Amino acid sequence: MTNIIPVDTKLDLVLKRELNVPVSLVWRGLTEPELLKQWFCPKPWGVSDCRLDLRPGGEFYTVMRDPDGNEFPSTGCILEVISEKRLTWTSTMVTDFRPAKPVSADDKECANISMTAIISIEAIPEGTAYTAHVMHATPEQSKLHEEMGFSEGWGTTVKQLEELLNQEIA
Amino acid sequence: MTNIIPVDTKLDLVLKRELNVPVSLVWRGLTEPELLKQWFCPKPWGVSDCRLDLRPGGEFYTVMRDPDGNEFPSTGCILEVISEKRLTWTSTMVTDFRPAKPVSADDKECANISMTAIISIEAIPEGTAYTAHVMHATPEQSKLHEEMGFSEGWGTTVKQLEELLNQEIA
Repeated sequence: MTNIIPVDTKLDLVLKRELNVPVSLVWRGLTEPELLKQWFCPKPWGVSDCRLDLRPGGEFYTVMRDPDGNEFPSTGCILEVISEKRLTWTSTMVTDFRPAKPVSADDKECANISMTAIISIEAIPEGTAYTAHVMHATPEQSKLHEEMGFSEGWGTTVKQLEELLNQEIA
Repeated sequence: MTNIIPVDTKLDLVLKRELNVPVSLVWRGLTEPELLKQWFCPKPWGVSDCRLDLRPGGEFYTVMRDPDGNEFPSTGCILEVISEKRLTWTSTMVTDFRPAKPVSADDKECANISMTAIISIEAIPEGTAYTAHVMHATPEQSKLHEEMGFSEGWGTTVKQLEELLNQEIA
């Protein structure tokens, strides 16, 4: 069921972290909209709305809000839901596997990077091993995503997730 | 499990046929590469190679060959496999849910229509009710696909499928 998808270093970006919270709680943070809204965007940006339909083909809807209150809605498609193990979604499709509107290859907007994200979590003595494996179509898209701050951005949000979940425990 | 995905008449194309062969045999025609190669392309075009990895994320690989022997390989991604009921795949991704290379919105090549195809089959007294529901991102892509001969092309291949399966029975 949880077949491993190989990393292509020319096309993919990977972020690994160890979180000091149990895997069951990390799964809740990934899959409950009210929790996801609190960590999914690096502050002072935020997420003002979120809907997750946890099934293959289900909606992955978020509205990012900048510090001035401008909102940026985005719909992706959930591909895999393996409880407390793996959540996969893509920006290449919207709800019910419908193709997303075409992205121009030279569009420089962050929202226009096509990607599939595989978040894998696993219990370790310290808590949870967290891996984000983000796949792109071309080396150019991968490089662009890295230059736009993938490592810093996703790293910051995972830190926010860990802090939030520690508050949930406390 | 087999939730129905609604048709959006502005974005989707639908082809319905009744086939005089049992549903189990139609499923074989859809999922066995050696059978699929014999009907999937309107003759005198053909399919010279095919690989199907029947799992979500699995490869949907075909090589179409024109009457002069020119070959056109294409890789899609399988999304849903519900035995003898539904097979869903997309051109928006390749194997393991990786985004496919971006398609230009104004590209007129047939191979560059982004689509997700849902093939549903169901037993009826006459044999099998066959429905192809093809989803696009925009009305323009749907119209382009129709103009490129969707109804005639897919209609022809389903006829070829029925004839092939009747030979299999005989």
